[in-house]
Amino acid sequence: MQNQLAQPDLNNAEDNPLNRLSDLLDADMQNVDALIIQNMHSDVPLIPKLAQYLISAGGKRIRPLLTLASTAMFDGSMDKSYNLAAAVEFIHTATLLHDDVVDESFERRGKKTANLVFGNQASVLVGDFLFSKSFQMMVESGSLDILRILSKASAIIAEGEVLQLATTNDIATDMPTYLNVIESKTAALFAASCEVGAVLSGQNDSTVTAMRTYGTKLGTAFQIIDDALDYAADQEKLGKEIGDDFKEGKMTAPIIFALENASEEERIFWKRTLGYKKQEETDFDHAMEIIKSHNALDKTIALAQKYADDATQSLSALPDCEIKALLCDLTGYTITRSF
Amino acid sequence: MQNQLAQPDLNNAEDNPLNRLSDLLDADMQNVDALIIQNMHSDVPLIPKLAQYLISAGGKRIRPLLTLASTAMFDGSMDKSYNLAAAVEFIHTATLLHDDVVDESFERRGKKTANLVFGNQASVLVGDFLFSKSFQMMVESGSLDILRILSKASAIIAEGEVLQLATTNDIATDMPTYLNVIESKTAALFAASCEVGAVLSGQNDSTVTAMRTYGTKLGTAFQIIDDALDYAADQEKLGKEIGDDFKEGKMTAPIIFALENASEEERIFWKRTLGYKKQEETDFDHAMEIIKSHNALDKTIALAQKYADDATQSLSALPDCEIKALLCDLTGYTITRSF
Repeated sequence: MQNQLAQPDLNNAEDNPLNRLSDLLDADMQNVDALIIQNMHSDVPLIPKLAQYLISAGGKRIRPLLTLASTAMFDGSMDKSYNLAAAVEFIHTATLLHDDVVDESFERRGKKTANLVFGNQASVLVGDFLFSKSFQMMVESGSLDILRILSKASAIIAEGEVLQLATTNDIATDMPTYLNVIESKTAALFAASCEVGAVLSGQNDSTVTAMRTYGTKLGTAFQIIDDALDYAADQEKLGKEIGDDFKEGKMTAPIIFALENASEEERIFWKRTLGYKKQEETDFDHAMEIIKSHNALDKTIALAQKYADDATQSLSALPDCEIKALLCDLTGYTITRSF
Repeated sequence: MQNQLAQPDLNNAEDNPLNRLSDLLDADMQNVDALIIQNMHSDVPLIPKLAQYLISAGGKRIRPLLTLASTAMFDGSMDKSYNLAAAVEFIHTATLLHDDVVDESFERRGKKTANLVFGNQASVLVGDFLFSKSFQMMVESGSLDILRILSKASAIIAEGEVLQLATTNDIATDMPTYLNVIESKTAALFAASCEVGAVLSGQNDSTVTAMRTYGTKLGTAFQIIDDALDYAADQEKLGKEIGDDFKEGKMTAPIIFALENASEEERIFWKRTLGYKKQEETDFDHAMEIIKSHNALDKTIALAQKYADDATQSLSALPDCEIKALLCDLTGYTITRSF
């Protein structure tokens, strides 16, 4: 096993806010990485092998960074935040492993998915291991309040994933249901990542709520853009195939906006391709045309922008500092990112 | 959703120790059942539907009973034990859901498996939900010691499942490796179920260790017999198909004993049927003949008996009481049970 994690691939050299936050918290993030490696260990060799495969592919590590940032912002104990940041990344990694099994995905972070390389069985079980380990790490924080926040977030993530499964291939899925799915499956962990830093630092309720709201709004914006990128991204930069959501019949913002004023003919097209997953080779291109003709991607980005603005707004009452400024900048970055 | 759980089907009218323990703790178990129903709830209807499907099929609920028994035995707070007992059953249920996906099983507790009825995707995700919920329930216990015990047990279970996966179809798997698998995947949760009752009741280290050892030994005996039943049970009583382990090429005690003194011809047979999973219709009958000719089932039961005796022995220093006597009787029952 390599004993170093790949550095996050932040996809371009430009000085984006995620890079700046990463740089500022670099020494702390190294401690988190060390804990991630340490807790991936198991006497069963397949576990570190599979976990390392996914984690070393270099995700953005945005969630642990948020935990570190929200702790540092209030001068909380960085030592205590490391375990929590690593735990948050483990929850996220476990979710990815199970997601890729559920979605039958083949590519993530520019590599074959773990389920393709190691099999669905190993992905399910190693996901369970990472999930259990995340709780072991959280317990070390010694705070029942924090355990309550993160265990609740985990349950909400799973609920969001099940709701997403139930709405897949259902073209009647509306915007509130879609927002419920992404606030659960994605934003809940962003929110918890931000909240635990404030709790760890002993902040009052209104500050904790502000950080939690920031995480919820940022995570929602992040996921909406993720869903837009599945119809708009440069495949190489994205690190996975575009059109995956279309193939699976996932009901995401671009589709829901396109369906709002769909002609009868378009509705029949969506029903066949998404509802019944009966797809031909040219269907994705045609889907893109319809999406374009309804300005559905622009509407999707505008929706994400609204959440990004709300995220910034939620921090307004907090004292100004370097990290707060970076967190505000980060909301814009979630919109303009290309991966 | 039904608002009552099916009563455990203890498969025969005779007055077995599990029934007697169930009767003694009946009022407490009703509280646990109420918590199980309450915590299965979700606004996403598929979650209670699937969870209810499996839980209402009526398992033995032996693990939550052990938590109740080990709390009652030391006059601990029964109120606090209910959440933990329900949490333990949720961990077990989550494991079953994922196991059946991994094993591609079709039948459990006399019903079609959840993955067959609801699909693998839903089983994986609802398993994740129950697992997260179990942690939420544990947090309510307010004890970091107990959270440490149960989160560690969860990680060990996952390790055991991965090790089992790695040894499946590997006919070189030896007895120590097999015992490592079952002590992890099964006995770890039995051990934790017993240990938390003693911890909750504020018992000293030697008592906690005694209860933990009892759980480990009992759980190991239980799993060894489970593995024997897959080659010996009355299918109707067992509630699942016999021969499943053979079909999957799982390396369990009856096979490992049969391989110890295998002829060259037999070794070739095992290599083909288990190693390469190339099986013909008559192969299971032939496997049973070989197992019989090596007294491999008798040896398996003797091994389980040894663990059952150790379980009883581990309680010897504890004060005599009705529950202790029942726990001792339960060790014999794990050997003689037919399901």
